[in-house]
Amino acid sequence: MNIERRWPHAEITADCAAVRARAPLVHCLTNVVASTLTANVLLAIGASPAMVHEEQEVRGFTAIAQAVLLNIGTITEATARAMEAAAQTAKAHDLPWVLDPVGVAALPWRRRFARDLLAHRPAVIRGNGSEILSLAGRGDGGKGVDSTASSTDALAAATALAAATGAVVALSGATDFITDGTDTVAVAGGDIMLTRVTGTGCALGAAIAAFLGAGCPPLRAATAASALFAVAAETAIVYSHGPGSFAVAWLDALATLEA
Amino acid sequence: MNIERRWPHAEITADCAAVRARAPLVHCLTNVVASTLTANVLLAIGASPAMVHEEQEVRGFTAIAQAVLLNIGTITEATARAMEAAAQTAKAHDLPWVLDPVGVAALPWRRRFARDLLAHRPAVIRGNGSEILSLAGRGDGGKGVDSTASSTDALAAATALAAATGAVVALSGATDFITDGTDTVAVAGGDIMLTRVTGTGCALGAAIAAFLGAGCPPLRAATAASALFAVAAETAIVYSHGPGSFAVAWLDALATLEA
Amino acid sequence: MNIERRWPHAEITADCAAVRARAPLVHCLTNVVASTLTANVLLAIGASPAMVHEEQEVRGFTAIAQAVLLNIGTITEATARAMEAAAQTAKAHDLPWVLDPVGVAALPWRRRFARDLLAHRPAVIRGNGSEILSLAGRGDGGKGVDSTASSTDALAAATALAAATGAVVALSGATDFITDGTDTVAVAGGDIMLTRVTGTGCALGAAIAAFLGAGCPPLRAATAASALFAVAAETAIVYSHGPGSFAVAWLDALATLEA
Repeated sequence: MNIERRWPHAEITADCAAVRARAPLVHCLTNVVASTLTANVLLAIGASPAMVHEEQEVRGFTAIAQAVLLNIGTITEATARAMEAAAQTAKAHDLPWVLDPVGVAALPWRRRFARDLLAHRPAVIRGNGSEILSLAGRGDGGKGVDSTASSTDALAAATALAAATGAVVALSGATDFITDGTDTVAVAGGDIMLTRVTGTGCALGAAIAAFLGAGCPPLRAATAASALFAVAAETAIVYSHGPGSFAVAWLDALATLEA
Repeated sequence: MNIERRWPHAEITADCAAVRARAPLVHCLTNVVASTLTANVLLAIGASPAMVHEEQEVRGFTAIAQAVLLNIGTITEATARAMEAAAQTAKAHDLPWVLDPVGVAALPWRRRFARDLLAHRPAVIRGNGSEILSLAGRGDGGKGVDSTASSTDALAAATALAAATGAVVALSGATDFITDGTDTVAVAGGDIMLTRVTGTGCALGAAIAAFLGAGCPPLRAATAASALFAVAAETAIVYSHGPGSFAVAWLDALATLEA
Repeated sequence: MNIERRWPHAEITADCAAVRARAPLVHCLTNVVASTLTANVLLAIGASPAMVHEEQEVRGFTAIAQAVLLNIGTITEATARAMEAAAQTAKAHDLPWVLDPVGVAALPWRRRFARDLLAHRPAVIRGNGSEILSLAGRGDGGKGVDSTASSTDALAAATALAAATGAVVALSGATDFITDGTDTVAVAGGDIMLTRVTGTGCALGAAIAAFLGAGCPPLRAATAASALFAVAAETAIVYSHGPGSFAVAWLDALATLEA
């Protein structure tokens, strides 16, 4: 397997500029815990977030968005129906969408749901080691919504999942791996503090959707978002005294890095 | 049209003191993304926030509140029923309530719902240019929940909507306009950074409800809340390095400006 | 009544270390407003938060958690059913769980629901003065979700409630009282600013669950969490200019105090 470890800096800079220039409307069906941070991250990178959950509104709204995020972290029967409708609509309109299968390692009901969603062809699947292993049918159970597998442990599963689904898989961990089943990019760096602030992984899924909505192809979109998050974390850690001030400085960094 | 551009500073100071003295209970049915910021803003200005969504509880709870906020940002069928009950109860008890018609420009289902709510006579309608245009039947579609119309573009629609409904319309934008259909106040200033932090517009609707709950008449309540937000933003921008630190400094400023 | 006013410092330090060492999975069914802060507080003290609301998932998920928090702040019929299932499962598996009866003083529907939940034997009940009075059948009504009774006013009710239910009652106020009906610990200190940041009381319920999940007995778990919150608040106030910066510094302090 060929793993590219140098970041394509010029591409990432161009892609960040594209998000700011196009300000893609990202329709997010996401979990309650990460909603606010997700919206703030999308605003920070120049995208236009909108959270619309009601099934009767979802089809119409998805159709006018540039990209969709489906994050199943606090899924209910009602939001599952809305997500199904959003995924169908996205596929019908050839809109890129991101699946974030939060918690599938520990929860069989949502694992089945997430697998069913794969039929609607997500452009990118973003998850941690346990989630990607689980979705690939090699599950280790995880620990609630946290991973018990490193991203390195789950890399083979990520590659297989990408090959089987046609999606790019963005596997989060100490090193992020982004793979289309053939080519794999490794994004190291960032900071462990990102795991101490709730919702940063969920916000990464949303940021990937924003890059897709700005016209980036999937492998490049996921690489740009992962790299941007890592660099912002490295900037933020310098100004932080714990997870509270880190979250503040990280949002500041996301908004100002390109400038 | 007469537009007053000088703020009534003495009135605003008195109204802020009234909110702190009476600590009005503001019953908020609002969206998931803005819930936390909304509660924190209400606490910062001295009001007492409470979010109660269950239809079985709404009538009883509205009856003991001093003011109500209905924000349809992440509305569902269930919360729509609860909002209808809250609006009915508010009208029956002669309680002031604020309608924040988030997203009506892009979403026909909620546009009909918001228009139906007008029968229960909100004291204030707060929205951006696209939302006010849409509610006034002159819709431009907007972009998701963001506006594609400036507040100046929508001022005539705001005046007409106020005249037609009897509500004061608080139209947000680079300059906020507050109009009862006859008199109009312009609140300029603030900072563009307010648009980079999710939920500040939603929190403005809640703050207007707090001023109403403290006994201010609608035009004065909306003017005071808009002016307070603008001054706090001008204070906060001095201490901020991006949207993360701006949000923190802005909450600090809201809590300490009067002191 | 014997009230212990000296904190067991060595025990608290040991208990904080136990939470970090065991990183208990805390299954939270909590309100929309406090969800993000609750997760961030649990991460800051070293626990592993997970919010799972769907009734079909709750039984299975509770069974793999180390502790459960049921907070009824924004309860709906659907989440009430999920909470009932979680409480049943916790009891069946002998898992400790915390009840946070937000708003019972003002809202009869949830008061009945909270009383019904008592049959599933919470390890700890955490509430403010009005809530504990209400749950003990001595209600004063409260003011929305805020208390109109001091913790001293409600201490006799707390003791009676503990004796009647077998739960430890953690009564929040200017001084926190933690009682099992026989022994009572007073935790003074902290800072009034904790009441200006939404969700800190709710996060206390979650932190108590984390200490329970790490193996602490209920009286000790509630004392450790209350003391940790108070000390972190006293640290944070030094660095804060208002509720925005206080919340940031408080999270930082929670994460770094033991180090």
